[in-house]
Amino acid sequence: MRLALGLQYDGAAFSGWQTQHSGQTVQDHLEAALVKFIGDPAIAKVNTITAGRTDAGVHALGQVVHFDTDIVRPDLSWVKGVNAFLPATISVQWVKPVPVDFDARFSGFERTYCYALLTGPCAAPLVAGKAGYYMLPQGKSLDVEAMRKASQCLLGEHDFSSFRSSECQSKTPVKTLYQLDIHQHGPWIYFVVRGNAFLHHMVRNLVGSLLAVGSGKESPDWLKSVLEARNRQLAAPTYMPDGLYLIRVGYPENFEIPEPNLAGSLLPLELFKSIEVS
Amino acid sequence: MRLALGLQYDGAAFSGWQTQHSGQTVQDHLEAALVKFIGDPAIAKVNTITAGRTDAGVHALGQVVHFDTDIVRPDLSWVKGVNAFLPATISVQWVKPVPVDFDARFSGFERTYCYALLTGPCAAPLVAGKAGYYMLPQGKSLDVEAMRKASQCLLGEHDFSSFRSSECQSKTPVKTLYQLDIHQHGPWIYFVVRGNAFLHHMVRNLVGSLLAVGSGKESPDWLKSVLEARNRQLAAPTYMPDGLYLIRVGYPENFEIPEPNLAGSLLPLELFKSIEVS
Repeated sequence: MRLALGLQYDGAAFSGWQTQHSGQTVQDHLEAALVKFIGDPAIAKVNTITAGRTDAGVHALGQVVHFDTDIVRPDLSWVKGVNAFLPATISVQWVKPVPVDFDARFSGFERTYCYALLTGPCAAPLVAGKAGYYMLPQGKSLDVEAMRKASQCLLGEHDFSSFRSSECQSKTPVKTLYQLDIHQHGPWIYFVVRGNAFLHHMVRNLVGSLLAVGSGKESPDWLKSVLEARNRQLAAPTYMPDGLYLIRVGYPENFEIPEPNLAGSLLPLELFKSIEVS
Repeated sequence: MRLALGLQYDGAAFSGWQTQHSGQTVQDHLEAALVKFIGDPAIAKVNTITAGRTDAGVHALGQVVHFDTDIVRPDLSWVKGVNAFLPATISVQWVKPVPVDFDARFSGFERTYCYALLTGPCAAPLVAGKAGYYMLPQGKSLDVEAMRKASQCLLGEHDFSSFRSSECQSKTPVKTLYQLDIHQHGPWIYFVVRGNAFLHHMVRNLVGSLLAVGSGKESPDWLKSVLEARNRQLAAPTYMPDGLYLIRVGYPENFEIPEPNLAGSLLPLELFKSIEVS
């Protein structure tokens, strides 16, 4: 039997998603909790596949995972039982049986990320690790219109090599961006990005380069020339992971994957109206 | 010379405000940073006085502190310099000279606290330590109208002994509540409480008892009988510190104390319109 599982976590507490010898990754904690919940001495390992292998420091509100098991328990029993073995910084939101042709990674046809950035003269300790920070003198703000203008060239299908980490394992640098919205709420700027898939560090590299435009260091046209050059050296440095959230993974409707619950974060819910997330 | 200082901190990272041998309190960190910033071998200690001695786990967005010093530096130099010696979970927001008759504690004529509570079937890892949590089955909510009705009896001057910790050092259990607003935003409930001063654990004890009403365990009239009994045994248990924020301390206008910057938290700014905080 294949089960899908919705997951939220505070990425600041872990060395990313993917299993490591340290055991301090989200996957390590989740798989250990699944084994403990199953409680069968014959089952020493549960292999999980995830929609998005988030980096260290990157958060998830709508992560989706699948695994195969012969254990039959009520859905809610999986949720409560596995959560009992997880730290407070990871939470299973739902569990449900799915057809065996469901694959958390390969069935996902789009991913939505949000990058939350606080600007201003002082960092804010109550969002430390939960938001990116851009130091600005009192009364100054980034040029959001310039960033919006620059971002237009990114929409659609492109070779995103200029925004690709050297460690990226994707078969192709060609990805399709469906949406890139930039919202400004007082000193907060939120980047909402939706695409079919993302290269390693791609969202953080895009945010870094958009901020080079927003700060006036580069012109909006510069971003187009960086994209077209397909050269990582030309783009701005990778921005800090703290503000990055995996919000939602889109699957074919027939799998009936639940929408993520976005209320348990500092992100304003109105950001996501246009991506139809509950 | 007397300086006032605005402070924000994530209370989950510290053993409360007040200095302890462990050195793991906000006061310990702040005083150590002040000494390092001053950088004078003859000055081994700076004594600070605070508006509100918050407990372990309780956060501050608008904490105010004063201290006396002969060191003359530009205000912004104090802010940046002291922050350089503080962990990311504490931040100095502003520093300014004040008259010697200003006292961060005794000049403050009112304090505003906010308690942020998330309700629902699953705890939310991205607000762990930053919000209280009340487990409710999917689709259920607390009776906010019953809590509002119950809270009316608390407004004005009362003997709050029923909501006073046994460790409270206040000279009198008689305090005045000016405001107690209960806001509901989807699964979030926010309690905004403004009063001249608060007993030890008073806000958390009030929240615990209001939740006994909101859950239907007790009637709205029960709260009045608890208040009038002046007996701590009758009230509900102290609610967890995680959701409690010191928002603002009110001072006479002539001291020109800056308003707190509330943007750097997960609290919706519209909560504070009625307390006229920026």
